[in-house]
Amino acid sequence: MEKLLEKEDWITVENGTIATPLGFYADGKHCGLKRKKKDIGIIFSETPAESAAVYTMNQMQAAPIFITKDSLEVNQTLQAIVVNSGVANACTGKRGLEDGFAMRAMAAKHLGVAETSVAVASTGVIGDYLPMEKLATGIAALDLKSGISSDFHEAILTTDTVQKELTLQSEIGGKVITISGVAKGSGMIHPNMATMLSFITTDAAVPAELLQKLLKQKVDQTFNQITVDGDTSTNDMVIVMANGCAGNAIFSDGTPEFTAFAKMFYAVCQHLAKSIARDGEGATKLIEAKVKGATSKEDARMIAKQIVSSSLVKTAMFGEDANWGRIICAIGYSGGRFSPDNITIKIGNTVILEKSETTNYAPDVLASYLKMENISIEVNLHSGLEDGVAWGCDLSYDYVKINACYRT
Amino acid sequence: MEKLLEKEDWITVENGTIATPLGFYADGKHCGLKRKKKDIGIIFSETPAESAAVYTMNQMQAAPIFITKDSLEVNQTLQAIVVNSGVANACTGKRGLEDGFAMRAMAAKHLGVAETSVAVASTGVIGDYLPMEKLATGIAALDLKSGISSDFHEAILTTDTVQKELTLQSEIGGKVITISGVAKGSGMIHPNMATMLSFITTDAAVPAELLQKLLKQKVDQTFNQITVDGDTSTNDMVIVMANGCAGNAIFSDGTPEFTAFAKMFYAVCQHLAKSIARDGEGATKLIEAKVKGATSKEDARMIAKQIVSSSLVKTAMFGEDANWGRIICAIGYSGGRFSPDNITIKIGNTVILEKSETTNYAPDVLASYLKMENISIEVNLHSGLEDGVAWGCDLSYDYVKINACYRT
Repeated sequence: MEKLLEKEDWITVENGTIATPLGFYADGKHCGLKRKKKDIGIIFSETPAESAAVYTMNQMQAAPIFITKDSLEVNQTLQAIVVNSGVANACTGKRGLEDGFAMRAMAAKHLGVAETSVAVASTGVIGDYLPMEKLATGIAALDLKSGISSDFHEAILTTDTVQKELTLQSEIGGKVITISGVAKGSGMIHPNMATMLSFITTDAAVPAELLQKLLKQKVDQTFNQITVDGDTSTNDMVIVMANGCAGNAIFSDGTPEFTAFAKMFYAVCQHLAKSIARDGEGATKLIEAKVKGATSKEDARMIAKQIVSSSLVKTAMFGEDANWGRIICAIGYSGGRFSPDNITIKIGNTVILEKSETTNYAPDVLASYLKMENISIEVNLHSGLEDGVAWGCDLSYDYVKINACYRT
Repeated sequence: MEKLLEKEDWITVENGTIATPLGFYADGKHCGLKRKKKDIGIIFSETPAESAAVYTMNQMQAAPIFITKDSLEVNQTLQAIVVNSGVANACTGKRGLEDGFAMRAMAAKHLGVAETSVAVASTGVIGDYLPMEKLATGIAALDLKSGISSDFHEAILTTDTVQKELTLQSEIGGKVITISGVAKGSGMIHPNMATMLSFITTDAAVPAELLQKLLKQKVDQTFNQITVDGDTSTNDMVIVMANGCAGNAIFSDGTPEFTAFAKMFYAVCQHLAKSIARDGEGATKLIEAKVKGATSKEDARMIAKQIVSSSLVKTAMFGEDANWGRIICAIGYSGGRFSPDNITIKIGNTVILEKSETTNYAPDVLASYLKMENISIEVNLHSGLEDGVAWGCDLSYDYVKINACYRT
């Protein structure tokens, strides 16, 4: 099993924001890219922060991906991230790239930092050009001193119904270290080696190279293990900034301090990933699939992700129907290795399949479990020692409604 | 482009059935596996027929797959196919295999042929055991002399709303050759190297080896290029029987006669595959995605299939929304090779994207096109010379309804 964080060595900061870690500021405003809701936001660090990022594997990469790569390539540090929602600036060609660079320049000028200290992210409708005048007005209005930092959380959302944020704090190596993460999700969610938009700040001092390694590893275990609709977006991006304002001795790999930090970092990523799955378009339930006894971690994760990706499993969960035939069918076409005759499946605490055949389980107990909002499916392949977990949501009428009428 | 069959060298036999080719008989009956509808059927050839089959690539293969392989292994001939709907006999372990063999034995006895002359197929709920007494009564009631052969078409359906059948006839090498095909589809449809249930009969004389090669090739171009919900079933199977009753000189590969036969065979497969996509659970539209200008046929087919597989494209089509961003996004994560900056997309006759950027198309023309039942999406990658096509359906409220309540 992926580490289940039974013993938590940290506290959750109530009403924390992406600017809770020392030295960070944030704001969000409305500038007319969306009808009413906030659509432009910024995160700023008072000192250059060691930074790392992962990006979508979709070959149709949106302009902001190129701009952010350009900024990070210089020296793996960032001082700001500017984000808009409403327009994805994807499939916008040369003009889209120019617009993205202009957006970065506007933010840099507003903040008084170098252009390559600024990362850019966008989310929204594919194919529309950024309305640059509105954007310029919006960026100029962002106020890091008197702005409300949690407004950033709202500014990055599209069809999301809730904000997704977590701030954790722990004493590590004698210093109070804070990590805060925020994410947008909702639709076009099936990350591949990268993910939807998520931004993580920390006041810990972490070298960029170590930060990149940590981010990649944890994203693979969390954001890359969720799905809403099987569609990998053109704009996915996770960025982490570590500005060192907490005053800790710079972390190095393998030390107890870094291990503690990595654990807390994983907890933030896992929370955000699960929140995205739970808030998937039209979702009424969070579905967690755990796969045990696989021959490799990759197999375990692949099979778990296939289960939560199956439209038939998703509709069965919406219908509160323990249709395990669909679960075993998804395992079967996942491409993972296993012995077809020796599969155990548990839904909640009910073992419904043993040695790949149905058990005499009590349908009543299961029926009341399936009415709950959080559904756990646990598969034991009895083929090896490796485990993996993935998260998804059910497929409801509202998913169809939201996506049949997204633009109209 | 896959051959578009512009010039048809054959006629469609009106009210044709799977028993229209000479020497074939069929019947279907109700024996209580389903509530009311016919659920047991048989196809019989008066002489042993050279036969070929392809099967699901799902690792959780249902019992009937094993039974049919066992029969075909003997000498690549069959005299009968017995099929039930309502119960899939999948994930039923040792007992399921015994039941499958018993079902084959019952049919063989009823028809007076060797057990290994009979293929077995099942479709329906996964995990339930076959009610053998009901099945025995059903098989005994099948009547090849006074039965209605088109009743077989109904007996193989589950949530399908229409029968899927085509019978074509042509004069080849001085003999009238007939090919008839029937299929069931509906849900758990995303064939991988094999497909859902389909049975094809012909009175042509074709050696089994050549028949197998032809079947594999045409299935790859047709049944394997459709999707309803992305789920590859445990029971998929296509069987073709060629009994030679038409009296033609046995076909050999590369001759004009076999080429003419192969063309007609492809037309039957394509018709059935498209019918399955059109009758996908809850579907209101058939979506055809054609990909031109790819670097390989595999790439073209993979990209075409990814487009019709995307939940976001499917819901957009249901909503009659020309959301091409979702189409290009699907191309992007398909895994196919292409140049991201040079993609043309046409919906119907309207070019909506050129060099990967939006055109000034007339939204009104497109809006009325999208109200139609058959939607064509054509993509030109301008990267090579190869083409491919795939078929799918839209994703509607009814898909969710059907699958949230399938068993209850």
